[in-house]
Amino acid sequence: MKTKPSLAVLGGTGDLGSGLALRWLEAGYAVVIGSRDREKAAAACVQLRGTLAERGIDDVKLTDMDNVAAADAADIVVLTVPFSHQQSTLAAVKDHLNGKILVDVTVPLVPPKVGTVQLPPSGSAGQAAQAFLGDSVRVVSAFQNVAADHLKSGHELNCDVLVCGNDPEARTAVVTLVEACGMRGFQAGPISNAAAAEALTSVLITINRQFKCHAGIRITGV
Amino acid sequence: MKTKPSLAVLGGTGDLGSGLALRWLEAGYAVVIGSRDREKAAAACVQLRGTLAERGIDDVKLTDMDNVAAADAADIVVLTVPFSHQQSTLAAVKDHLNGKILVDVTVPLVPPKVGTVQLPPSGSAGQAAQAFLGDSVRVVSAFQNVAADHLKSGHELNCDVLVCGNDPEARTAVVTLVEACGMRGFQAGPISNAAAAEALTSVLITINRQFKCHAGIRITGV
Repeated sequence: MKTKPSLAVLGGTGDLGSGLALRWLEAGYAVVIGSRDREKAAAACVQLRGTLAERGIDDVKLTDMDNVAAADAADIVVLTVPFSHQQSTLAAVKDHLNGKILVDVTVPLVPPKVGTVQLPPSGSAGQAAQAFLGDSVRVVSAFQNVAADHLKSGHELNCDVLVCGNDPEARTAVVTLVEACGMRGFQAGPISNAAAAEALTSVLITINRQFKCHAGIRITGV
Repeated sequence: MKTKPSLAVLGGTGDLGSGLALRWLEAGYAVVIGSRDREKAAAACVQLRGTLAERGIDDVKLTDMDNVAAADAADIVVLTVPFSHQQSTLAAVKDHLNGKILVDVTVPLVPPKVGTVQLPPSGSAGQAAQAFLGDSVRVVSAFQNVAADHLKSGHELNCDVLVCGNDPEARTAVVTLVEACGMRGFQAGPISNAAAAEALTSVLITINRQFKCHAGIRITGV
């Protein structure tokens, strides 16, 4: 059996990042919470340990670091910062990503109209990340359509995850991470297809506003 | 009770167009099948009548016309031509769309890589249609993620439809058309959000290839 890769969640102090970290910790992965501000990362870890302790889980592999140290320490790096910080965060950690998988979770929402699709000139945040990092980093886009509230809850997740990236092996590794969270991951094509999942987030926000809910998607007919 | 609007399906000789027509005819709508070639429209009508007769439905309101006459005759006009014919078809019928709803079903697939998202510079086919037709026509994007095979079958449909457009009343009218086909329609925001459904089509094609299926989507958590 393969050992589990270690994970760094950059921007792991946010709702989505800590929700993902929670699921991975429950599944036995070693997780580093990264933040620009190490103290915030430490505070997020205290909260995560508290939530897990309430669920009867005390023995977790969880540490806090600043983003650069976190990216350096982990096998797979997960980026969950707001879109406006995507570029600056990648610039800070770029030198520590060589040969690694970068899971891009950012969604190019442009406030205040976050319910309106406004994809960037590069086509998608995923493509922007891949273009910026170059071929030595395998960018895989995922988790854009999962509500943080659902991740943080202990309940079963009723949504699927679209996994896009140019490297099939990297996509497969990320599908495994999706399954570790308790969801189905679909290999959804090259990194340019990240546009679909990213655009869908604004659609889901529009639906959430109508129904006061946290909507997701399921692939049917498979 | 309101009377049902009459429908024109331009490009109704194709798989998706005739699949939609079939469902609407079954629901009691008057449908005009439009084509550039009137004879092809007539042949499609013969086939539709045959399918419906096999299902025990003989009394249907179905006629064939060329695209221009069809657009002129109907209350709501549905465009189901390939993306490469979108602009030319709209140019041909534009003068007959004033004050009407144009349901844009086109998906900006760029062969041969139809499994790769390649949205047009305007952002989406839906936005391109709205920009071309101007404010006197209310463009609503819908039905991009429904497999023609499922529509043509008599069975229940296990997918939802994202309905995007700038005019809420027009979106509501199209949601009614979605429901008439036996699906749930979700108000998914302005016409720029058509990018989500259009991009998703390439993702579904990618999934179809892996699983030899006709995939669709469902909105969950509502």
